[in-house]
Amino acid sequence: MTSYIKIPSHLVPSDPQGSDLLALERAKSTFNVKELTLALYGSKELERFNRILKILENDPVFDKSNIYFMGRTELFEHALKKDKRFVQLIKKHKWNIEEIQTAEFLLDLPGPYGLHRGMFIPTIFGQGSEEQKKKFLIPALKYEIIGCYAQTELGHGSNVQGLETIATYIPETDEFEINSPYLTASKWWIGGLGRTANHAIVMAQLRSNGKDFGPHPFIVQIRDLESHQPLPGITVGDIGPKFGYNATDNGFILFDHVRIPRFNMLSKFSQIKKGTGEYISPPNDKLSYGTMVFVRAMIVSNVRISLARAATIAIRYSAVRRQFVDKEQPKKLENGRVVETSVLDYTMQQYRLFPVIAQAYACFYTAKAMIDLYMNYLKQSSGGDFSLLADLHASSSGLKSLTTAMAVNSIEECRSACGGHGYSNFSGFVTFYQNYLPNITWEGDNYILTHQTARYLLKTFREVVSSKNPEVYASQSKQNPTITYIIDYINNPNLICTATKPLDFNNNELQLRAFGHRAAHLIANAVDQIDHQKKSWNSMLIEINRISRAHCQYLLVRNFITAIREQPQPIEDEKLRILHNSPALKEVMTSVCNLFVLHTMEKELGEFFECGYMNDSTSKLLRSRVYDLLKEIRPNAVSLVDAFYIPEFALRSALGRYDGKVYETMIDWASKEPLNGITLDVNPNSEVLFRNKNKAKL
Amino acid sequence: MTSYIKIPSHLVPSDPQGSDLLALERAKSTFNVKELTLALYGSKELERFNRILKILENDPVFDKSNIYFMGRTELFEHALKKDKRFVQLIKKHKWNIEEIQTAEFLLDLPGPYGLHRGMFIPTIFGQGSEEQKKKFLIPALKYEIIGCYAQTELGHGSNVQGLETIATYIPETDEFEINSPYLTASKWWIGGLGRTANHAIVMAQLRSNGKDFGPHPFIVQIRDLESHQPLPGITVGDIGPKFGYNATDNGFILFDHVRIPRFNMLSKFSQIKKGTGEYISPPNDKLSYGTMVFVRAMIVSNVRISLARAATIAIRYSAVRRQFVDKEQPKKLENGRVVETSVLDYTMQQYRLFPVIAQAYACFYTAKAMIDLYMNYLKQSSGGDFSLLADLHASSSGLKSLTTAMAVNSIEECRSACGGHGYSNFSGFVTFYQNYLPNITWEGDNYILTHQTARYLLKTFREVVSSKNPEVYASQSKQNPTITYIIDYINNPNLICTATKPLDFNNNELQLRAFGHRAAHLIANAVDQIDHQKKSWNSMLIEINRISRAHCQYLLVRNFITAIREQPQPIEDEKLRILHNSPALKEVMTSVCNLFVLHTMEKELGEFFECGYMNDSTSKLLRSRVYDLLKEIRPNAVSLVDAFYIPEFALRSALGRYDGKVYETMIDWASKEPLNGITLDVNPNSEVLFRNKNKAKL
Repeated sequence: MTSYIKIPSHLVPSDPQGSDLLALERAKSTFNVKELTLALYGSKELERFNRILKILENDPVFDKSNIYFMGRTELFEHALKKDKRFVQLIKKHKWNIEEIQTAEFLLDLPGPYGLHRGMFIPTIFGQGSEEQKKKFLIPALKYEIIGCYAQTELGHGSNVQGLETIATYIPETDEFEINSPYLTASKWWIGGLGRTANHAIVMAQLRSNGKDFGPHPFIVQIRDLESHQPLPGITVGDIGPKFGYNATDNGFILFDHVRIPRFNMLSKFSQIKKGTGEYISPPNDKLSYGTMVFVRAMIVSNVRISLARAATIAIRYSAVRRQFVDKEQPKKLENGRVVETSVLDYTMQQYRLFPVIAQAYACFYTAKAMIDLYMNYLKQSSGGDFSLLADLHASSSGLKSLTTAMAVNSIEECRSACGGHGYSNFSGFVTFYQNYLPNITWEGDNYILTHQTARYLLKTFREVVSSKNPEVYASQSKQNPTITYIIDYINNPNLICTATKPLDFNNNELQLRAFGHRAAHLIANAVDQIDHQKKSWNSMLIEINRISRAHCQYLLVRNFITAIREQPQPIEDEKLRILHNSPALKEVMTSVCNLFVLHTMEKELGEFFECGYMNDSTSKLLRSRVYDLLKEIRPNAVSLVDAFYIPEFALRSALGRYDGKVYETMIDWASKEPLNGITLDVNPNSEVLFRNKNKAKL
Repeated sequence: MTSYIKIPSHLVPSDPQGSDLLALERAKSTFNVKELTLALYGSKELERFNRILKILENDPVFDKSNIYFMGRTELFEHALKKDKRFVQLIKKHKWNIEEIQTAEFLLDLPGPYGLHRGMFIPTIFGQGSEEQKKKFLIPALKYEIIGCYAQTELGHGSNVQGLETIATYIPETDEFEINSPYLTASKWWIGGLGRTANHAIVMAQLRSNGKDFGPHPFIVQIRDLESHQPLPGITVGDIGPKFGYNATDNGFILFDHVRIPRFNMLSKFSQIKKGTGEYISPPNDKLSYGTMVFVRAMIVSNVRISLARAATIAIRYSAVRRQFVDKEQPKKLENGRVVETSVLDYTMQQYRLFPVIAQAYACFYTAKAMIDLYMNYLKQSSGGDFSLLADLHASSSGLKSLTTAMAVNSIEECRSACGGHGYSNFSGFVTFYQNYLPNITWEGDNYILTHQTARYLLKTFREVVSSKNPEVYASQSKQNPTITYIIDYINNPNLICTATKPLDFNNNELQLRAFGHRAAHLIANAVDQIDHQKKSWNSMLIEINRISRAHCQYLLVRNFITAIREQPQPIEDEKLRILHNSPALKEVMTSVCNLFVLHTMEKELGEFFECGYMNDSTSKLLRSRVYDLLKEIRPNAVSLVDAFYIPEFALRSALGRYDGKVYETMIDWASKEPLNGITLDVNPNSEVLFRNKNKAKL
């Protein structure tokens, strides 16, 4: 890239240098970073990651050095180029889904083909008949047709049953007529629809013989394959600029009585019969839940990496950045010169950032637990046993809600903890935050999702309470932790924290009982209000949200504790084996787990008081333990983020560089800002704005 | 603006229409909206507002219809054009500071001249000698020279004493030599420096006769007035793209032994003597505090409008947006058709949004109290009495920290409460949030600022406790609420909430005692830990932050209560008079005040438990009261935001339109997205990306 300004080459940052400071931090670590990385990802995933990183880093099409300077059109053009090259590489290297996902994480630029691969192809694969797969899936896999998935409308998001687009069966011609009767029926937010897709899977209200059968998916060609112009009756375009995701052409579409063959209704599960228009309904409505569960498990899995990425930037920069001399404990260089204190040594900075490290590690183990549970469910459900589904659906809904909200807050916390420079795109936080943000809204709005979780918990509570045979539940409870904590609560609704010194809070059993008790207390209260005080569901929504939150915090706590506590030997899982074979790793991860659990408890202190568990003496012990955990973690802070193993190529951050060359990078990147190629006329009375306007457009 | 896509004109949103829904909402209001607007702003401010709005709205240079589509260079060019026109209008209409501020709020596009007017001119005015004003202020006021204020450096922000730029007095030539010895000494983040300014006030370490006298301000010409090129020895440029504020050219600058005349050191307060290099120190170091206090009072004053703006968009859209049929309480149209429920009727939505309305109103009264106090201080200090300064400085620091953090969180809460559409720039939230965000960092980082507040509170507590004559403090306490709550706490450290039913929480005395008790408890605890347990300041930073927060929440609560409770007659202040003369206004504002107070208490429940004030019975009553307050406010929700009187010109929001035409506007604006003028080649093997590339660049 061009530099518009020559930076004097003799200048260096004032001492101590960032690289030296990070080296000192790394020397303090009590564990082997490579070993922890392996315990997080496993050798297979790590090999894949390194292999794909090498390919992408060395391909000039994926060069990111220009990316922060691009306006929307330029960025979109770049993303299209990147997506085309990506498709070529997928074909060349025959990448599988995991490899594609790894590459997408590293490329970090959601582009125009994303939803073709992410939604159009999987939907045909999952819901199309064999003939439909032949007709649509094969050309889609070759990118001869490009599709998108059009469900959300201008006026309807969460309420899928309320969609307004209509698909009416016309027996005379054996066709469906797709129509948008209102402006609000316009499909909206559809990724890849705006400028790219020539096909769409359209969710529309199926109507046949004057009867309504609810939303069903239809494949509609929307643009000409030659001219790429919209087909007759179709109004389609990009919905305009967004907070982030501007390299994706989210689009809208209106249908004016557009005809498609009957064949185009995706018909693996339900169909309309030729001529008669008779509706054949799906055999099992639970099937579609499985996919939702998987998508949400993937979102939680992404949370861990997003938190890791944010923590990596903020921790490394906080080690390099110095501000003020701590008069009580001044830092000295080897030559005796007093220097300013690294901001990482300030307790407030630790209190803001170390919990984010802990959250990231917590999400590693919850993502793992969710995927294990999902695999288990897949095995059982293929034999017709859907008993795990309700729990899995409830947990994945609530965890998606809780963890994505946590990630958004923590990314912003890390960003603002970087002071002024956190506001610069060069921090690596800006587009990262902007692109992450829709996670709290899509795939189920975070507030609506908690209804699912709470409904299941209330139902479970009622069942346990009214059970004639509590022993049956007691035996089930080994598999279902929700039942365990509900039974514990029923047996001892007045549980009080027994800690008498701060270290007592390190006890895993105490931690689990505390979180279980608080969740059960909220559930019991809500059941009482609904069942006995006859409160309406709407009047309970605030409690509903708290119930889901409490339950999912319990799950995060439990999954983390389960991973680090003693395992039955021999340990089959490679990652857990590495962790448990190293006393140094176990020690540091125990501190991290305790910080996650106890910091979460401290943040929710009000609820732990309200359920009678905590009082003003135990809360003092808790806070004291949290502060001591910050000290315990301090020497390992930089190594704990190094272990996340997020490469420079993905971070794209001047502040979070592994080598600590923060200031050199900031000024080098600034010299490349295109605005620096422009000379102004600053006289307010002159109509000339840029004296070298054409250059400005470079 | 060009539409790239023709939207079918026969389509309308499905019923009920947004305009009808908002009309129904407005009909439910229990008070006169115009009257409340007058009670918020007063007739003089309102007249000014309307007058300036009319001028700006009708000037084609200020047309905002294109603004969401601009990339950085285009936006900067637009802002320069806007700023030039703005200067012409300021001259033409002879606008004063208040009028300029009103126009800046309405134009809502911080541009290249902003810091010339906001910092360069005021600094010369406040710190320059008469000769310096003659030489620099007069051409600056005519925009013959354009300046900026260069303090922050690449390596130093909050710690001004640690700045690295050096100004050495050279007696031989009677000059200063300005030098950047390190890369980290580069000035950074300087608004208007990147491409615009030809002069800078540079804060540099003054050095004379081998001695250091700390940071002082120097005027340095940095660009040639004819060619606009950097002068010799100067490396200057724009620092690159940011989260927001991209119409401003924040810049960096390095000085390579640049000489300036001795005359250019701003010398109202301190000087270097010609030849001898003798340093003359300032008479009073408190003088500069006054300006900081005023800037922070202005920031709090802006918080109220930012919260009002966010609430306006979210409340209006939530009234228009419908989602799901509430099965227990279905909504029906006049013709009996069941329609989906407005999301504003869901308690969770109310719980998310109504507190933001309440925060906005709270900030109106705290901004008023701060400005009144500042005026009072100005009067006293001109007579040499600085006794108000310590309290004013402490409160303004903590309130800046608390309220800007509250605003950032609440804007994002309102945005995400708008579902998917909140993510579109057309929501009006995106650039608004992005431009607001630096408020938590600039003019004192929000965390560092709380040190000032807590230091003052700890000192006051120690003084009251050790006072030989508590009656003296008791008499002072009438003027100083901090002393009041400290004395109350000392007299009754075991205060317990006396509420026995939810309505008891409406009692203002109870509310004030609760917030005072909690703040005093935190202060007392910290004093104990520092003075008796000998804890270091660094180990106390987390508590420090909580103390400042608790104290400033007390101030917000107190200022709101003071404004709405009985006033001595006759009421001189026009705004308060209007409020108190209308029973309807008083009633609704009492509900809003109660919601602010009690919702804040609920959010901080843990601390109210920890200080022994709340227990699990009273907390139930509190929550119940909060939920009832949501019901109380519901009929007035739309009118309460209408009363903020934020015009369409400033909102620039499709969702927050006064007329409710949300969906029509969304699709109209989308049709103008420039990307819609582009046709792609979507074949992944084709190297062509845009088939009509030149058109794309339009």
